[in-house]
Amino acid sequence: MTVLTVKQARAATAIGQSATLQGWVRTRRDSKGGFSFIELNDGSCLANIQVIADAALPNYELEIKHLTAGCSVTARGEVKESGGRGQATELHAAEVVVHGWADPESYPLQKKRHSLEKLREWAHLRPRTNTIGAVMRVRNQVCRSIHDFFQDAGFLYVQTPIITASDCEGAGEMFRVTTIDPANPPRTPQGQIDYAQDFFDRPSYLTVSGQLEGEIYATALGKIYTFGPTFRAENSNTSRHLAEFWMVEPEAAFYELSDNMDLAESFLKRIVGDVLDHCQEDLAFFHERIDDSVLPALTAVAEQPFERLSYTEAIKLLESSGEKFEFPIAWGADLQAEHERWLTEKKIQAPVVLHDYPRTIKPFYMRVNDDDKTVRAMDVLVPRVGEIIGGSQ
Amino acid sequence: MTVLTVKQARAATAIGQSATLQGWVRTRRDSKGGFSFIELNDGSCLANIQVIADAALPNYELEIKHLTAGCSVTARGEVKESGGRGQATELHAAEVVVHGWADPESYPLQKKRHSLEKLREWAHLRPRTNTIGAVMRVRNQVCRSIHDFFQDAGFLYVQTPIITASDCEGAGEMFRVTTIDPANPPRTPQGQIDYAQDFFDRPSYLTVSGQLEGEIYATALGKIYTFGPTFRAENSNTSRHLAEFWMVEPEAAFYELSDNMDLAESFLKRIVGDVLDHCQEDLAFFHERIDDSVLPALTAVAEQPFERLSYTEAIKLLESSGEKFEFPIAWGADLQAEHERWLTEKKIQAPVVLHDYPRTIKPFYMRVNDDDKTVRAMDVLVPRVGEIIGGSQ
Repeated sequence: MTVLTVKQARAATAIGQSATLQGWVRTRRDSKGGFSFIELNDGSCLANIQVIADAALPNYELEIKHLTAGCSVTARGEVKESGGRGQATELHAAEVVVHGWADPESYPLQKKRHSLEKLREWAHLRPRTNTIGAVMRVRNQVCRSIHDFFQDAGFLYVQTPIITASDCEGAGEMFRVTTIDPANPPRTPQGQIDYAQDFFDRPSYLTVSGQLEGEIYATALGKIYTFGPTFRAENSNTSRHLAEFWMVEPEAAFYELSDNMDLAESFLKRIVGDVLDHCQEDLAFFHERIDDSVLPALTAVAEQPFERLSYTEAIKLLESSGEKFEFPIAWGADLQAEHERWLTEKKIQAPVVLHDYPRTIKPFYMRVNDDDKTVRAMDVLVPRVGEIIGGSQ
Repeated sequence: MTVLTVKQARAATAIGQSATLQGWVRTRRDSKGGFSFIELNDGSCLANIQVIADAALPNYELEIKHLTAGCSVTARGEVKESGGRGQATELHAAEVVVHGWADPESYPLQKKRHSLEKLREWAHLRPRTNTIGAVMRVRNQVCRSIHDFFQDAGFLYVQTPIITASDCEGAGEMFRVTTIDPANPPRTPQGQIDYAQDFFDRPSYLTVSGQLEGEIYATALGKIYTFGPTFRAENSNTSRHLAEFWMVEPEAAFYELSDNMDLAESFLKRIVGDVLDHCQEDLAFFHERIDDSVLPALTAVAEQPFERLSYTEAIKLLESSGEKFEFPIAWGADLQAEHERWLTEKKIQAPVVLHDYPRTIKPFYMRVNDDDKTVRAMDVLVPRVGEIIGGSQ
């Protein structure tokens, strides 16, 4: 008998098939007519499939009538057209095998809504919630599109070192990687820590960026990208800081700033477009239950041309905005989040590529313009998020 | 003018196009006829394209005639059919712009062959060699196929934590991740190291496996895979040990051992098949210049059915082999590399899936068979490599 995912079994094309479904019970409801409705979810999509279990099944009284949220089952039967609302199909079970029970007294994921903070306490179970399941499916699509985009564009995927002995332009505080026991470290005759006896014979850290290694590959292979974990040991507890996160870093030889801007725009349009195309059910859930500003923001990225604006023009717009900003506007100063949000959300109301920043606020290696004051750098700002990509020639 | 990669410009379909090519000079040779042949490589493929630069070009005497290996150039002109051997096309340059020079006295990558050991000293330049360039293109294809395989099979890509406070079945020695200064660590009143003052408030390490987190996602989302860096602090300097490497870990709910074996076989066949299809030029180079056992080994993985053999059967074959092994054969002992190689390379001469190992040599969480002595575990062995995949129900 064919094993189908819930997603496959919910399609009208599955009607008439004999199928095996495997997943976790969300709810069970018993009908007076002598059967039970089991809502089954397997993570392949947000929606459940309704499994109809007849009282004539041999384990009906002993097992099926005791199924509760979180129980793990295999159901075999025929997929039939459903008369129910919001579902094209249902499974008429000829067999229901219970693999694992979930004690309703202690299983925490009951039908009520739990806060994300509360779900942190059940990290081993939260992927079974609608919200985290939807996040993981969207995240998977984003990752897939990242690879598809670069592969289609002829970029080679390279893995740059995670453990490194070099810093990268002081991008942030670093974590030390060591096998030295701090309770009893080896010391030099002068009393210093003897890193020659550490695993890599010298002080070693977690990478803050693969940029340096990426440049080495790009100046040999033309166009490369990295997509891997990156680490910052900054003790900042904000929604914009993470100790560990996955980052994409493309490097392309011979690219000029306009090439970078084209790449950044088509990259974001591809990823967001794919998510809009392939994750409609999950996005509709976010829109309805989490935040109704998500869909318009994504649609703006996918459909609107990105406005290209020099830093100097942006400063003029901000100066003449009449807005009261917490941080002062002055040519030469870094833009703050409030300035970026005003530009992209209020003034332009579309994604913005800011370019040609003052050289004094950017790293030394960026190409200096003929004015000797600005460099070929860019930041991509999108409504609702702020800076999402930075780059330079 | 269209920017083409060398790979694109070498295709017969490019003939007649006006094109811009950008890359690095491999060699320059001057003809008595009043022009120079420049072999240009850009990493898009192993082969170079021949650029023909006429002495009439304005920078011919001053620049073009001084081009040497490693110089970075843009060449614009027309792609024409070539009369040369091994090339369908060549570029007749209307313009050659030199972006960067490479001093032939100090640029180390000269036409002679360098050992891989020697190339380690020039890590910033070795991706420009034929060997490392070919390795990186094949590695890119492998990574692409890993993602394509799992995405096509409905597995979700998840990123499991790199920094972790938990060990995973003692898979190996771990690296500590810390912001504590070992020269002056915080101590508790009892004189112990006070890890409550470390970044994560407790001792933290680099992951040796994402298996535990992967299982959490699989028992919610059905089928997941990880593909990320993994770390082992074992001080073993062998060709089978790395301190840092990228690993693939699929986890699937409801899978039985035969499903694992099917997955492992189709996974390897897909990756190797894709490499054989898409990296022919690079594989031919390895075959000719590095090791002529690579192509037959890959072809065997792609084309031969994997032989499935229980551990108990394997022990019998080994006992009756008449071979002199360094390590003794006995039911209950782990197989050594010499035993695995004999099985896959000499006896079976194909990839082998060994299954149902003694429970005493495998971790506690594997499903025990009815014999109470063996567990539903498997290892995939391939000729020339040995164990390449391990798994269990």
